[in-house]
Amino acid sequence: MKCTVLGAGAWGTTFGQVLADAGNDVTMWAIEPEIVEGIRDHHRNEVRLPSVAELPANMTATGDRAEAVRDAEIIVVAIAAQFARVALAEFKGLISDDAIVVSLMKGIERTTSKRMDEVVREALDLPADRFAAISGPNLSKEIAAREPAATVVGCANIDNAHKVAAACTTNYFRPFVTTDVIGLEMCGSLKNVVALAVGMARGAGYGENTAAMIETRGLAELTALGQAAGADPKTFSGLAGVGDLIATCGSPLSRNYTFGANLGKGLSVEEATRVSNGVAEGVPTTDAVVALGKELGVPTPLACAMSRVLADGISCQEMLSLLFGSEITEE
Amino acid sequence: MKCTVLGAGAWGTTFGQVLADAGNDVTMWAIEPEIVEGIRDHHRNEVRLPSVAELPANMTATGDRAEAVRDAEIIVVAIAAQFARVALAEFKGLISDDAIVVSLMKGIERTTSKRMDEVVREALDLPADRFAAISGPNLSKEIAAREPAATVVGCANIDNAHKVAAACTTNYFRPFVTTDVIGLEMCGSLKNVVALAVGMARGAGYGENTAAMIETRGLAELTALGQAAGADPKTFSGLAGVGDLIATCGSPLSRNYTFGANLGKGLSVEEATRVSNGVAEGVPTTDAVVALGKELGVPTPLACAMSRVLADGISCQEMLSLLFGSEITEE
Repeated sequence: MKCTVLGAGAWGTTFGQVLADAGNDVTMWAIEPEIVEGIRDHHRNEVRLPSVAELPANMTATGDRAEAVRDAEIIVVAIAAQFARVALAEFKGLISDDAIVVSLMKGIERTTSKRMDEVVREALDLPADRFAAISGPNLSKEIAAREPAATVVGCANIDNAHKVAAACTTNYFRPFVTTDVIGLEMCGSLKNVVALAVGMARGAGYGENTAAMIETRGLAELTALGQAAGADPKTFSGLAGVGDLIATCGSPLSRNYTFGANLGKGLSVEEATRVSNGVAEGVPTTDAVVALGKELGVPTPLACAMSRVLADGISCQEMLSLLFGSEITEE
Repeated sequence: MKCTVLGAGAWGTTFGQVLADAGNDVTMWAIEPEIVEGIRDHHRNEVRLPSVAELPANMTATGDRAEAVRDAEIIVVAIAAQFARVALAEFKGLISDDAIVVSLMKGIERTTSKRMDEVVREALDLPADRFAAISGPNLSKEIAAREPAATVVGCANIDNAHKVAAACTTNYFRPFVTTDVIGLEMCGSLKNVVALAVGMARGAGYGENTAAMIETRGLAELTALGQAAGADPKTFSGLAGVGDLIATCGSPLSRNYTFGANLGKGLSVEEATRVSNGVAEGVPTTDAVVALGKELGVPTPLACAMSRVLADGISCQEMLSLLFGSEITEE
């Protein structure tokens, strides 16, 4: 079937390759003419995915929106989270009435504090049963190299989740399905706070125990928030929750990890921002988690401690003391 | 208070230092005269914990069993799992009637398939409320360096869990408490199968996604087994479960990881055993998990796939195919 991917960044292009490997005809849409030309004429995305020498033959590209989505049964959105609403508005009316729209995006829209499922559905005026989210331990570089990975496809309509999952199943990429879209979205965005904290501990010179402790306590915090927000706690103990957290915190390449590591080494937020060439997603997400915890009446000790790091520059040791308090408690 | 640690290996000695740092008078018991002498006269355990230059002043050692446990309120057992029953038998009758016995040991007694709580209680004829287990993301080398870590103390009697937790709380070591002793014991022993599989994937050259996927699916398998055996599933999503799994699988130093990595590189079980100077704990544990799954009626796809690796020498890719089957399912 025809599948279209909107956005030809590293993850979008990699996922396009997965769909092509699964036997679909894949059209990438990108705004940059040189990326379109590279994929269409040379089967390369030199700019965003230089590690892949040759993209599959059944993968092409266009810069034309109408052409991109015409007759596409599955339309995958892989645009930077903060630009998704504006970029998708231009596709409204072009997408066929029975296409399923799949989001690969992770994050919270800063201006509205909304999740990506809300942003996409609002921008395209899309009913819940035609929206799917994909989230899991999916570092794009490894999937681009066709290393074995699993993921979760979520859709309110389980048949549509199965349809998307079948379309992206290959011998190296293994999707599971769920109807818990909210859980998937929350896992994907909120984990960045934990990655920031783990990066900080690594930057301060601490090893596996400290990282594992922060990941575990962070996971408990996100699970409680998710449950209060109507998500299924099982999503958080699955591939999109603990799985993605392990992969993200295990990779020193992630932006949040690096940003946190610079804080752990003693840099101020301003200095870390300068060194990292911009602020990491986990920084605004930290405040969003604190606010969400207040709204839902759920304690968020890790996010609160990290917000003190970001606002007042407290050290990693002070952050850990805040995280744990002084009383011995049940887990 | 007086605390005694039986066994002066790396973890036992490290935990002795934690107890001493928390303000207790600590007596280490060891069978090796040179280790006793080193700790008692030079505040060093050159043989088993060379990374620590000077053990605390309030830590001593003896080779005399009666002297070791006399007046001890907390007696910590840190003996190799397979020798615990025989070694502890010599202490029966020496331990005071109100001492709490704490196990740091992880594993299953091969000759009986029993958990360490069962072994210790049988060997010492100890009631449940005086037995505690400690388990968590606790690589001894990092705790010996006083890096921040958390753990879980489990005892059927929650007051005794609190007593042990208070005795080992320092500014770098943070215990939580639980009554789920079975869950703690199962986490600590069964995770070795997962570590073996993750090591195998690493040895085959795969990265974070594959490791995170195996850890997550392995965790789900252990949680289902634990629940069927009467453990609390929350223990598995906490520090002793996912936390310990993350730390263990993140450290290339662990024996199971290294053994698995050699299998992943294409070595046979015999060759890996030769290279590793003995079989890793995860090898017999794999069969124990398969047997436990059959007994409890719980599917154990990861343990079954790993038992095919160990029995028939199937490759990492075949192992992963077995793990996932061919149908798309809910997580």
